[in-house]
Amino acid sequence: MASEVTLLDFWPSMLGIRVRVALAEKGIKYEHREEDLRNKSPLLLQMNPIHKKIPVLIHNGRPISESLNIVHYIDDVWNHDRAPLLLPSDPDQRSQARFWAHFVDQNVFSSGRRVWATKGEEQEAAKKEFMETLRLFEVELGDKPYFGGESFGYVDVSLVAFYSWFYAYETFGNFSIEEECPRLIAWAKRCMEKESVYKSLPDEKKIFEFVIQLRKKFGIE
Amino acid sequence: MASEVTLLDFWPSMLGIRVRVALAEKGIKYEHREEDLRNKSPLLLQMNPIHKKIPVLIHNGRPISESLNIVHYIDDVWNHDRAPLLLPSDPDQRSQARFWAHFVDQNVFSSGRRVWATKGEEQEAAKKEFMETLRLFEVELGDKPYFGGESFGYVDVSLVAFYSWFYAYETFGNFSIEEECPRLIAWAKRCMEKESVYKSLPDEKKIFEFVIQLRKKFGIE
Repeated sequence: MASEVTLLDFWPSMLGIRVRVALAEKGIKYEHREEDLRNKSPLLLQMNPIHKKIPVLIHNGRPISESLNIVHYIDDVWNHDRAPLLLPSDPDQRSQARFWAHFVDQNVFSSGRRVWATKGEEQEAAKKEFMETLRLFEVELGDKPYFGGESFGYVDVSLVAFYSWFYAYETFGNFSIEEECPRLIAWAKRCMEKESVYKSLPDEKKIFEFVIQLRKKFGIE
Repeated sequence: MASEVTLLDFWPSMLGIRVRVALAEKGIKYEHREEDLRNKSPLLLQMNPIHKKIPVLIHNGRPISESLNIVHYIDDVWNHDRAPLLLPSDPDQRSQARFWAHFVDQNVFSSGRRVWATKGEEQEAAKKEFMETLRLFEVELGDKPYFGGESFGYVDVSLVAFYSWFYAYETFGNFSIEEECPRLIAWAKRCMEKESVYKSLPDEKKIFEFVIQLRKKFGIE
């Protein structure tokens, strides 16, 4: 029996994008269910009763939540020859990959959000924090084609999901990421040449329009 | 050549305790280096340049940081027959273990800290949040002896490290964890029967004295 895979998702979500990219990398067919976050489905509430958040991957009826945890799970389950490994097999390299992916969660999400959701001094502080974080990734990437080294991996999946949002960050923050992190932007463009990535990431202009709506909703001018 | 293992640690730290417990479970001999967090050693700054925080495990000269990441690493490297596995080998159970261990990090640390570091309404909110979190663990534990099922595992290591702090939380918060979460307290006592746990956890009264000093330092009365 083929395994049944369903993804509960919301199109602009970086966390959902990560799972889409991982599933595409592995060539896994799945049912995609778009959630209305203002009116969550009974299935979402049942499958993620603790956080009630997307993304949730449902595999043969069993739910997995938390995006990095889902990507790790996908890599553990679909680890046959035809599917590229996202996490390295060496324990030391695995731990480094987990460290950097977790670092994206701790630092990029929150400061990026504050770049478009605040103004004045608060926004300036957010821009500074956001760029300091990206500069650490610029250094960590170095001359490697991917964070995973020669091949696209766990940290790449974790961070590239934010690339659709860069245009909105830059426009509302009035700064250029490429000016300070040219290697990071070259890396993002390299990732975008992969079908698993460009088919999973929403268009940056569509994200920009979505952020305009959010700003209106939150009363930010 | 035997592997060289050093732990950069600070005795009251739950995050350091986790690593001590994991190393003890695996029977790994290591050098323990106590850090003065007001005057961090050059070794710590060199080994964890991003966060500059303990714990750091140095294995054959290579540093690993972030406590859950270190425990995961220890389980990946020392996975021979004589060492109990901390993470289950089944991918679904592995992902559930990672979920709950991460949930400890997201919820127990911060609300627990606010129980002793704040007062008035802020403290009441912290107590509520702290107990809501512990009740979720009470339910998740159910009738199992350990979060890992029949055997002590990753989630147990992650949460039991806080047990030394329970007395301080209860005393400064003026509440009883056992009243609302009797199974959780029975679980903690069961864990404390294990040598790997009782030899790694500081005495609760010593933690209490340490918290008194912190409160004085922060001007909390």
